[in-house]
Amino acid sequence: MVNLRSLFSPRHMLVLSAALNVSLVLKIIRQRREKVSRISMEKPKDAQIAEESKTEASSIQNMHPTPSPLAVNGGDADDGRNVINLDHGDPTMYERYWQEMGDKTTVVIPGWQFTSYFSDAGNLCWFLEPELAKEIAQLHKVVGNAITEGRHIVVGTGSSQLFQAALYAFTANDASEPFSVVSAAPYYSSYPAATDCLKSGLYKWGGDARNFTKTGPYIELVTSPNNPDGFVRQSVVNRSGGILVHDLAYYWPQYTPITSAADYELMLFTVSKSTGHAGMRIGWALVKDQSIAKKMVKYIELSTIGVSKDSQLRAAKVMKVVSDSCGASARPRENFFGYCHHLMAERWKLLREAVKQSGTFSLPEFEPGFCNFFQCLFEPLPAFAWLKGEGGVEDCESFLKSHNIWTRSGRHFGVSPSYVRVSMLDRDITFVCFVKRLSQIHLG
Amino acid sequence: MVNLRSLFSPRHMLVLSAALNVSLVLKIIRQRREKVSRISMEKPKDAQIAEESKTEASSIQNMHPTPSPLAVNGGDADDGRNVINLDHGDPTMYERYWQEMGDKTTVVIPGWQFTSYFSDAGNLCWFLEPELAKEIAQLHKVVGNAITEGRHIVVGTGSSQLFQAALYAFTANDASEPFSVVSAAPYYSSYPAATDCLKSGLYKWGGDARNFTKTGPYIELVTSPNNPDGFVRQSVVNRSGGILVHDLAYYWPQYTPITSAADYELMLFTVSKSTGHAGMRIGWALVKDQSIAKKMVKYIELSTIGVSKDSQLRAAKVMKVVSDSCGASARPRENFFGYCHHLMAERWKLLREAVKQSGTFSLPEFEPGFCNFFQCLFEPLPAFAWLKGEGGVEDCESFLKSHNIWTRSGRHFGVSPSYVRVSMLDRDITFVCFVKRLSQIHLG
Repeated sequence: MVNLRSLFSPRHMLVLSAALNVSLVLKIIRQRREKVSRISMEKPKDAQIAEESKTEASSIQNMHPTPSPLAVNGGDADDGRNVINLDHGDPTMYERYWQEMGDKTTVVIPGWQFTSYFSDAGNLCWFLEPELAKEIAQLHKVVGNAITEGRHIVVGTGSSQLFQAALYAFTANDASEPFSVVSAAPYYSSYPAATDCLKSGLYKWGGDARNFTKTGPYIELVTSPNNPDGFVRQSVVNRSGGILVHDLAYYWPQYTPITSAADYELMLFTVSKSTGHAGMRIGWALVKDQSIAKKMVKYIELSTIGVSKDSQLRAAKVMKVVSDSCGASARPRENFFGYCHHLMAERWKLLREAVKQSGTFSLPEFEPGFCNFFQCLFEPLPAFAWLKGEGGVEDCESFLKSHNIWTRSGRHFGVSPSYVRVSMLDRDITFVCFVKRLSQIHLG
Repeated sequence: MVNLRSLFSPRHMLVLSAALNVSLVLKIIRQRREKVSRISMEKPKDAQIAEESKTEASSIQNMHPTPSPLAVNGGDADDGRNVINLDHGDPTMYERYWQEMGDKTTVVIPGWQFTSYFSDAGNLCWFLEPELAKEIAQLHKVVGNAITEGRHIVVGTGSSQLFQAALYAFTANDASEPFSVVSAAPYYSSYPAATDCLKSGLYKWGGDARNFTKTGPYIELVTSPNNPDGFVRQSVVNRSGGILVHDLAYYWPQYTPITSAADYELMLFTVSKSTGHAGMRIGWALVKDQSIAKKMVKYIELSTIGVSKDSQLRAAKVMKVVSDSCGASARPRENFFGYCHHLMAERWKLLREAVKQSGTFSLPEFEPGFCNFFQCLFEPLPAFAWLKGEGGVEDCESFLKSHNIWTRSGRHFGVSPSYVRVSMLDRDITFVCFVKRLSQIHLG
């Protein structure tokens, strides 16, 4: 016989009530958005694009969307004067998936939570929420993109902080000269400034790893798939005693085939590019060596005394939903990576068509690889397009800027200004506007 | 006539449902805690103290509590073997107030929120949530402890990050030698390590400001009220061209009389010590000079690409409740600062009694000051006790450690090891256990 008392326990009532809440929250949000879209003529064009995108997103019911052709071919009113800002890798593309998932990842945090600095005083990383540690390990297990067994997890305020923690951890306070920090060009544009901003005596930016000839200790940053160009990478210096830091922010199946579980000394990940929650500022490092993990923790202790527990809590919840969405019992069309992979494939198809139509640019071509996660062969679908100006376009950033398309010049990545990096992760409406405008750019 | 439709709008239903949720959440938490306290014999003693404290806190109904005497005089079973850790300034004392306030500061964050890095792209501090900026200004206005008009607000991952951002902002990349960073001893124990950890070429720890004789540019850190000793401070170097950074983390009426609205070049604050939410990692700077604010933003961009939006949202909500609790329409016994001031006064009374009873230690004596916020005269009630060993106790930290009381030695603060810093902000049960044990320490 069913125990009625347990059916109406506070826990059950809470679930019911939370579900009610979320549907109400969503209803209010939708009402607000409708209101916003009605008054959007008063707003700057850029904000208008964003708001319209949100409205559009909330009205899409199909979980495997085909958003773009309609908008491109439809009667949109792009007169070329709106600024399309694709300079940053702002992952607002992901907003729609999470809207569709509704209440599943809503968190409720009571006011008395998190008065302490400590999350787990007994753990090496004392500011890591145990729930987050568990979900990080589970997600890597589900995706198969990194080994977590026997590794120390260090959480950071985004992977940027962990990158600096790694530099601090690998270098020596009593070294006679700073360690060289190198990466093969084109490298992530923030590396030089983030390395040199404080003129550290521990480390110093050493430039393109391919031209690195200096003797002495060095740290090579290997970003794979690479930001900005999307290619899978290995270290290039290959000198004994070299230290490798692997930035695997984009090693997820929506972007690239998962060919094996990564097994490096120090690997960096971030929710910004995996689940799309850049505003949380949560990254994590998987670290083999305990003494290195300890020094990283020390650095984060000195620089920020830990990492937001609110965001750790949310990140844990979001990761759990992602892992669960990949399970056998989940509805296939809710599979997070399937959904996002589909979206990226659509976008890359549209972009390649636009580039062809324009005739003024070129894009990298990728070899397909077999993905253990999807159990199929596919070509990489990077989070950034590494666009090259052809036919005499020497400064591609300025050229695109004259068409009100903001991108980031190749010179920030240590290469020629004929290249630009373009974010592929903005909201649908922005992306669609971009490809349409790009397709209409013709030289001469 | 009342519009019934509007009475049952989604918004109203949400409020009702949220209230229901929170009471259910609290019920479940209480059930869990009761369960935990039942099984606490299996846990380490330290964890046991914390859990018991939580259980006790949730059962206290009186908003102006008199927690300590009962516990001290009651049949508690402290055999002196439990470690009482008061080394860190972990502000868990505040947990109880927020528990009593129930649902007022609960935040609900849907999964689709915060996919973007940006909070307010048009603002100088582009990662600052507008709601937080508003509540920071409002709280300072209510308390009267700092001028915010015409200042730039820069948010940071705790004030530690803002301290480093300030060093970056005030120094010059092309300077011939590093700026000296000084502070009058006893100074905050983290300053030397946080300044020198990366061996920066921009700045270098210069020690006690009172002994500072080096020529060249310098930055003086003025912590007022001071951590560790609680005294109100002014700069001591007074040399032309000197740069001042005011750390006002403790300039709140639960700790010290608010004698005027602070009006310095750069002022640092944090929720850790104002509302007690250390786990949020939210601090803010009020900055006069726009170019300095811009450089601070640049530093935070390079080091963590902004600050957790989840925690900013929570901090805004908590601050609003604090401001509202001080309003004329609020119930007096819910006044946040009144509640916490009362608690601090109780604790200092107990501590002074224990010190007297022991005869082995001494404490600083403070002059009373008139507080504009409370409109009365009172003596400072610092967040730390600056305890001095007397009668031959030369190493007070080791001496107390032999009694299983963990504190921080004066040598970390640039002074004699006969001093220790003791946190006054731990949970009731820990604090009560501490004063009782301290009162029983007699030399010889």
